[in-house]
Amino acid sequence: MTTFKRIAVDVMGGDYGPSVAIPAALRSLALHPDLHLVLIGVKSEIQQHLGAAGDSLRDRLEIFHTDVCMHDDVKPESVLRKYKDSSMYLAVEMVKDKKVDACVSAGNTGALLLTGRHLLKTIPEIEKPAIIASIPLPMLYNSQPPQAQTSQTLTDHRCYILDVGANISSSAQQLVEFAVMGSVLACAVDNIKRPRIGLLNMGQEEHKGTQQIRDAAQQLQRSSTLNYVGYVEGNEVYSNKVDVLVCEGFAGNVTIKTSAGVVATLRSLLKQRIDQNWYTRLLGILARPFLASIAAQVDPARFNGASVLGLQGIIVKSHGNASTEGFFYAIEQAHKEIEDNVPGLISQEMVKLLDANKAAQVAH
Amino acid sequence: MTTFKRIAVDVMGGDYGPSVAIPAALRSLALHPDLHLVLIGVKSEIQQHLGAAGDSLRDRLEIFHTDVCMHDDVKPESVLRKYKDSSMYLAVEMVKDKKVDACVSAGNTGALLLTGRHLLKTIPEIEKPAIIASIPLPMLYNSQPPQAQTSQTLTDHRCYILDVGANISSSAQQLVEFAVMGSVLACAVDNIKRPRIGLLNMGQEEHKGTQQIRDAAQQLQRSSTLNYVGYVEGNEVYSNKVDVLVCEGFAGNVTIKTSAGVVATLRSLLKQRIDQNWYTRLLGILARPFLASIAAQVDPARFNGASVLGLQGIIVKSHGNASTEGFFYAIEQAHKEIEDNVPGLISQEMVKLLDANKAAQVAH
Repeated sequence: MTTFKRIAVDVMGGDYGPSVAIPAALRSLALHPDLHLVLIGVKSEIQQHLGAAGDSLRDRLEIFHTDVCMHDDVKPESVLRKYKDSSMYLAVEMVKDKKVDACVSAGNTGALLLTGRHLLKTIPEIEKPAIIASIPLPMLYNSQPPQAQTSQTLTDHRCYILDVGANISSSAQQLVEFAVMGSVLACAVDNIKRPRIGLLNMGQEEHKGTQQIRDAAQQLQRSSTLNYVGYVEGNEVYSNKVDVLVCEGFAGNVTIKTSAGVVATLRSLLKQRIDQNWYTRLLGILARPFLASIAAQVDPARFNGASVLGLQGIIVKSHGNASTEGFFYAIEQAHKEIEDNVPGLISQEMVKLLDANKAAQVAH
Repeated sequence: MTTFKRIAVDVMGGDYGPSVAIPAALRSLALHPDLHLVLIGVKSEIQQHLGAAGDSLRDRLEIFHTDVCMHDDVKPESVLRKYKDSSMYLAVEMVKDKKVDACVSAGNTGALLLTGRHLLKTIPEIEKPAIIASIPLPMLYNSQPPQAQTSQTLTDHRCYILDVGANISSSAQQLVEFAVMGSVLACAVDNIKRPRIGLLNMGQEEHKGTQQIRDAAQQLQRSSTLNYVGYVEGNEVYSNKVDVLVCEGFAGNVTIKTSAGVVATLRSLLKQRIDQNWYTRLLGILARPFLASIAAQVDPARFNGASVLGLQGIIVKSHGNASTEGFFYAIEQAHKEIEDNVPGLISQEMVKLLDANKAAQVAH
């Protein structure tokens, strides 16, 4: 007997709405026979984008109509007052009511977070939820080129970073909770046995950083269940030193956005220089497959899907300007989190950590 | 009559010591007939690296012997107790004693900062000094390629960012002081009439970020002397939106280090892919001048030289692993700051701002 994995998809959110969300949903349905999707949005638009493709998958696909959308320019707080009929709110509500096992939205991040906390509540052992994103770690090898890399091995090679903006600042205790949550996700989704955990800091030395970071470092060092490896500086984020990078929301937000900015700038620069004259254009054509292979390694689409962790339910946020490919990976992320019961694992691991702490205090 | 600009160079600091500092010093001396340098370090090593080149420039070059060096692995605080004979301490002391107009060191950043605050004191209107770095803004043009860019125009195209690590966190008032100091430097060194100032934040909306950031934004908005343009997100750092990016030390440190990490990773990735087979190696050879022109635009050496601003004297910190080219630009930075009397200008601008604030309060 197959246990279906049911995901609600808010198809109205993000810059492209159903034109991106529906093709992504169809791709996911085709890939996973155990997947059941509820598409929430304007019925006529959904049907139009489904076209004939929807027919063969119709038994695993449900449309839930609403024409209310929580737009990006609306203040997040208003979602709980004026937008309870929005596709986003309804998607989270279905998670709460156990009509689905997870939801995916590309809408207003602040509103999604508020709705999540309001409807799903945080896991009892967790103080505050965090948003976890992942950044690509390009495959750098030391001497010999490795065997041809499949898309699968590429997808797995990433570093999780949290918090990236659910909170501005965090206590030491919250940073430790982030470490637990990130570690659970890396272990569950990427099959890493003992994920290496680092704390983002201004330097390697013990005395560096805020009091919260230094206190969190001490707590993490004492933990027997977590694989804490030390401080990580900004320039080491991409050096495959850790699988989970823990930081306050402000620093995490700056880290992922700055990285994206540098990559985008270099890409534009390269494109412009290629367009400069016939010689550079020829080089560009000759190097196309070569450049594409490098671009694929730092392609943000493959790492789309920022999970809201710490809630009693699964919410995945797709980037507002994600492509179909990107939205597809956000659904994939939700699918994996259901498979591994990530909220349950987080709760278990937190209980273990708290018990170990209590035992240590008693022994002390 | 020429007024000499006198700079003390700690040649023992950094990863490469005199082997990088001395050739850089000679290049600066050859370029600027008004430059007088005091090289501080082990006399025999300095003489060895000077070789015959030193003879013709000997009248503008002085050697000050010490064999004590403040190494990177030494705790910064010990500089004031045990390392008063170190090349770094002596360099700053010469600024204090007005034997030179500025000093340059590639040594221990924390120690340099402590020595600077201890010996030179902060400018009366400034609460705390900040370290200001600059990041390259690659020339992106909208439609037509511009005329051939000279090295000079390239050098000028940068964004200053402060604080990048002198402090961990900062009050709103300090952030405003950073804005003044950065604006003065961009105006003096890069001849930008009204430098555009931004505050690094997690989003564009007014309610985003810490209380300090929001308060600083309000103060900057009210100022008639400063050209404040608003919040800047991490992905906009390289988009030429501002000339001066103001942030707390932790966030600034993460921003510049993450950027450097991304560039270094992409560079390694490119190099490895070029080495992969004969076809990619051939492409690499054909594209060499082309790649070099892109690399030059993001070359950290051209933007080496992080100034310690807010002190009653000029201190420029060269990156510890800077090349000769990089160290040369650090000396250039000190030379320009002397020319424009940056500490004096900062004091003037702060007085103006404080007077305007007082007038506004009286009028209120």
